[in-house]
Amino acid sequence: DVAEEAVPPQPYGSSIPLGKAWQGEVLLAWAMNGAPLTQVHGAPLRVVVPGYIGARSVKWVERLTVQREPSSNYFQATAYRLWRGDCESPGGDRQSDDGMALGAVALNSAILIPDDGASLPAGPTRVSGYAYAGDGRAVARVDVSCDGGAEWQQADLDDQVSPWAWQHWRVSWHLAPGRTEIVARAWDTSAATQPELPVHVWNPKGYVNTSWARCQVAVQARS
Amino acid sequence: DVAEEAVPPQPYGSSIPLGKAWQGEVLLAWAMNGAPLTQVHGAPLRVVVPGYIGARSVKWVERLTVQREPSSNYFQATAYRLWRGDCESPGGDRQSDDGMALGAVALNSAILIPDDGASLPAGPTRVSGYAYAGDGRAVARVDVSCDGGAEWQQADLDDQVSPWAWQHWRVSWHLAPGRTEIVARAWDTSAATQPELPVHVWNPKGYVNTSWARCQVAVQARS
Repeated sequence: DVAEEAVPPQPYGSSIPLGKAWQGEVLLAWAMNGAPLTQVHGAPLRVVVPGYIGARSVKWVERLTVQREPSSNYFQATAYRLWRGDCESPGGDRQSDDGMALGAVALNSAILIPDDGASLPAGPTRVSGYAYAGDGRAVARVDVSCDGGAEWQQADLDDQVSPWAWQHWRVSWHLAPGRTEIVARAWDTSAATQPELPVHVWNPKGYVNTSWARCQVAVQARS
Repeated sequence: DVAEEAVPPQPYGSSIPLGKAWQGEVLLAWAMNGAPLTQVHGAPLRVVVPGYIGARSVKWVERLTVQREPSSNYFQATAYRLWRGDCESPGGDRQSDDGMALGAVALNSAILIPDDGASLPAGPTRVSGYAYAGDGRAVARVDVSCDGGAEWQQADLDDQVSPWAWQHWRVSWHLAPGRTEIVARAWDTSAATQPELPVHVWNPKGYVNTSWARCQVAVQARS
């Protein structure tokens, strides 16, 4: 099981901080829902790291090590890192940048209904989606705008059922005819909120787009 | 000791979640740096809640209670809350909004040098400041721009010495003559970052401005 895309080619490897590995939610799993784990889910043994990017929940585990430093495996040390958008330094020295290893998932939100590009009748509509606050926090508030961010309404937000579950939200809006953009942004329990634009979080590998959720819709006048 | 600004007038009160109160960093303090606490610091007994807004570190403590719900005291239930910027609901019902109680401090950053409004000579300059990631996280990266956000440079960032301490950063930049804006933004270990503009976080009481740090400077050509 050698990953040819790694440089050099090597088996898949990954690491998490020991403090996270000690938490009760981190599992070595050989069964799911009362049945043996299937091969596609990582049988005979996989890691499950709730709250972290999927790449840390390694399947088909052959070996675990406890060590002082993060794994030097290609998929920890080189891939799955947030690189700066611009690696040039306009003043002073050019800085080396080995990026930030991705681990805990950041505050984010998504619009599930309507679909991006949907055509909707004018009048009352329901917008819904989910938000996620990241390790150790909950989503405290979700704002939705159906006019691209000019006016906002606070969504009805479900309580957090687990620190690693999405929190669903929904809002009612009266849509006027024309093209519009629906946007959503979440706030966590520290009152941190999402950045507005993708350009603020752009990075060469396209990871971690935590900017406001956006959905373009065409609203048709009722005949 | 009755606060007349409270409605109704009442002694100061505040609460924190039991899970936070159980943490080792939360103190009842009667001494500081080997000397008895002074009255201005809250003697004979004060609470210290690292990572939370200062309003939760109550001074001159008279009574502690363990209860199922947050305190109904004016300073917990009414003041120190993040209200929506716009309480009108453009579609559907007008929603009641009692705001979000402030507790854990959010990801933020500040520019310490130069001063806002400073006049600087053109050429190489040093920009420095601090960033703070909030409960359970560290600052992983700070970006600085000396042209209002067009070009960015990654700052040299100190390690976190304590989960409740500022992390200092610094960067070198070559300033061209003219007026410019220096901006800074921090990223935490979940790769969450700050919103760009104060309007994105505006709220009636002016709390929790977590938008990018900004500093206006006038750069003079060298004669």
